[in-house]
Amino acid sequence: MGFGNVGRAFLSLVNEKEVLCKERYGLDIRFVAIFRRDGAWVNSALLSTGDILERISSENYSPKVFYWITGFRLLEALESCEPGVLVECTPSHIRDGEPGLTHIHKALERGWHVVTANKGPLVMDFARLKDKAKRNAVALKISGAAAAALPTLDVALYSLAGAEILRIEGILNGTTNFILTRMKEGVGYDEALKEAQAKGIAETDPSLDVEGWDTASKLLLIANLCLQKNYSLDDVKVEGITTISPQLLQQGREEGKALKLLGTMEKQGEDETRLVVAPGIIDDSHPLFSVEGTNKGIIFNTDSMGSVTVIGGKSDPRGAAAALIKDIIHIYHYHFH
Amino acid sequence: MGFGNVGRAFLSLVNEKEVLCKERYGLDIRFVAIFRRDGAWVNSALLSTGDILERISSENYSPKVFYWITGFRLLEALESCEPGVLVECTPSHIRDGEPGLTHIHKALERGWHVVTANKGPLVMDFARLKDKAKRNAVALKISGAAAAALPTLDVALYSLAGAEILRIEGILNGTTNFILTRMKEGVGYDEALKEAQAKGIAETDPSLDVEGWDTASKLLLIANLCLQKNYSLDDVKVEGITTISPQLLQQGREEGKALKLLGTMEKQGEDETRLVVAPGIIDDSHPLFSVEGTNKGIIFNTDSMGSVTVIGGKSDPRGAAAALIKDIIHIYHYHFH
Repeated sequence: MGFGNVGRAFLSLVNEKEVLCKERYGLDIRFVAIFRRDGAWVNSALLSTGDILERISSENYSPKVFYWITGFRLLEALESCEPGVLVECTPSHIRDGEPGLTHIHKALERGWHVVTANKGPLVMDFARLKDKAKRNAVALKISGAAAAALPTLDVALYSLAGAEILRIEGILNGTTNFILTRMKEGVGYDEALKEAQAKGIAETDPSLDVEGWDTASKLLLIANLCLQKNYSLDDVKVEGITTISPQLLQQGREEGKALKLLGTMEKQGEDETRLVVAPGIIDDSHPLFSVEGTNKGIIFNTDSMGSVTVIGGKSDPRGAAAALIKDIIHIYHYHFH
Repeated sequence: MGFGNVGRAFLSLVNEKEVLCKERYGLDIRFVAIFRRDGAWVNSALLSTGDILERISSENYSPKVFYWITGFRLLEALESCEPGVLVECTPSHIRDGEPGLTHIHKALERGWHVVTANKGPLVMDFARLKDKAKRNAVALKISGAAAAALPTLDVALYSLAGAEILRIEGILNGTTNFILTRMKEGVGYDEALKEAQAKGIAETDPSLDVEGWDTASKLLLIANLCLQKNYSLDDVKVEGITTISPQLLQQGREEGKALKLLGTMEKQGEDETRLVVAPGIIDDSHPLFSVEGTNKGIIFNTDSMGSVTVIGGKSDPRGAAAALIKDIIHIYHYHFH
């Protein structure tokens, strides 16, 4: 569901990875249908992804094999089709979560596994969605929404299994990190933002990024899963980069330090957690000091495994698509083996 | 099996993590027996780990509940006991892999899952061991042998699932990195080595570390699992840090660069891979530049997820113990759910 940048990148990458998925994982991903808001392509003959791509680009639809149905809605299809995996890639609205929220609820109720790159529904209602997935014995996988190709949840839940995560600190938003990197190089905020927009890094309305809400959303998802809590965005103290004083940056530059937008989770007791998004000055001994441009990074401080830092991961629709495929591989491995 | 530093740390950490393992994973780890070369403690009543620790430290053994049997051998026990998980922590011998190799083969044959921190058997005979585990539908988990608390295999196989790993570069040995860090600070090689030995970081015979074989072993395990190949140590070009010229270090220092012992895997074609361990000079833009002291780090370059760097992880017996517990949690999750 959703055929924007991420949805399209996902379709392409599934095609590119067809042989690898079959040979390495025994997995053959086929699209039953591809939904947009205004209708859907239906792949009745379960054509290969390569075939679909060709037909979509050449508008070569054939009735009974691969065809477009105007007005065909995902919710109808979830009712009538045999369950599979819903890949939810509609735009993210972090204040009401729609339309993704309704899609995901419905899919889980009907026994579909869900993988999503859409933060909105998760930020809004993750506890209920997770619970619904559990009750219906299906998976809800959200790597694509939690920093995508930078492995955050995998490391927290899988690589650090058995350890207690006491503190998390991350640069979780590529757009603001790009702007801050350019500002460090002497460019003003407005100019840096325009550059980011020109490069397609920042959106026309950049407020979610620059005001810190995108970082807050990812921090919230990671923190809730790590700590098995149900914090909401209201529990996160959020400050963006729009009000950073030139003096602060100037000072950082002179001292060889860097200004970053940091999302921080800190356990302060069994039932108390500090969740903060705010610009912070770090020096060159900080593990995230060298995270520049659209790169991202995260530090986990634990009780028994020490501190683990992860940096990088492709920060574009192809990276998000790779995270979606990864989640599908994990679902296949766990639920169908 | 094996009650040295790692075995003891494992017992303690299982005790410390008892509540967490039960609450978070529904897992209650109990020791059936603890083997040393010269015999074993047998825990007939399946006493809690806390009880065992107390009895071992106070030598308060009680017949029919918890007792020591001189000469009781692991291989006998594997024959007669109901299968569980063998935790293999005997010292690592990378030239013949014994006694761990025989232990692990036998355990897998008898339907035991195996987790190990022992590189030797894996470097010697991983392909056959893996195959045996598969045929017997049991797990062979080796996080403890592949950089322990630094997640290397998890990231490669789980977090990067679906991506192709084209290149790996890592600082995989804490002892040599400690020595090189001290040398960068102006200390000579011999003195730095002595310091490392005094701190318990380097062993009395440090040759496996300083000649690069420990790094080569970890690189080999990671590369073989990532690429699904069966390379052997003979395929790795290995150079250690014993012959580093003071001039090279001096030069690096002056230019603000760092000398590191790097393990590198580079795919050069479908069936050609370059595997090299050698000292290398890196500058401050390199993601591993700030990996100092006994810290470790690894970079994965991939086709669809970009570059992912992981740094840190506790570099001591407690870190290795945490990696063993993690592997047991994964086995439990996958095989008993």
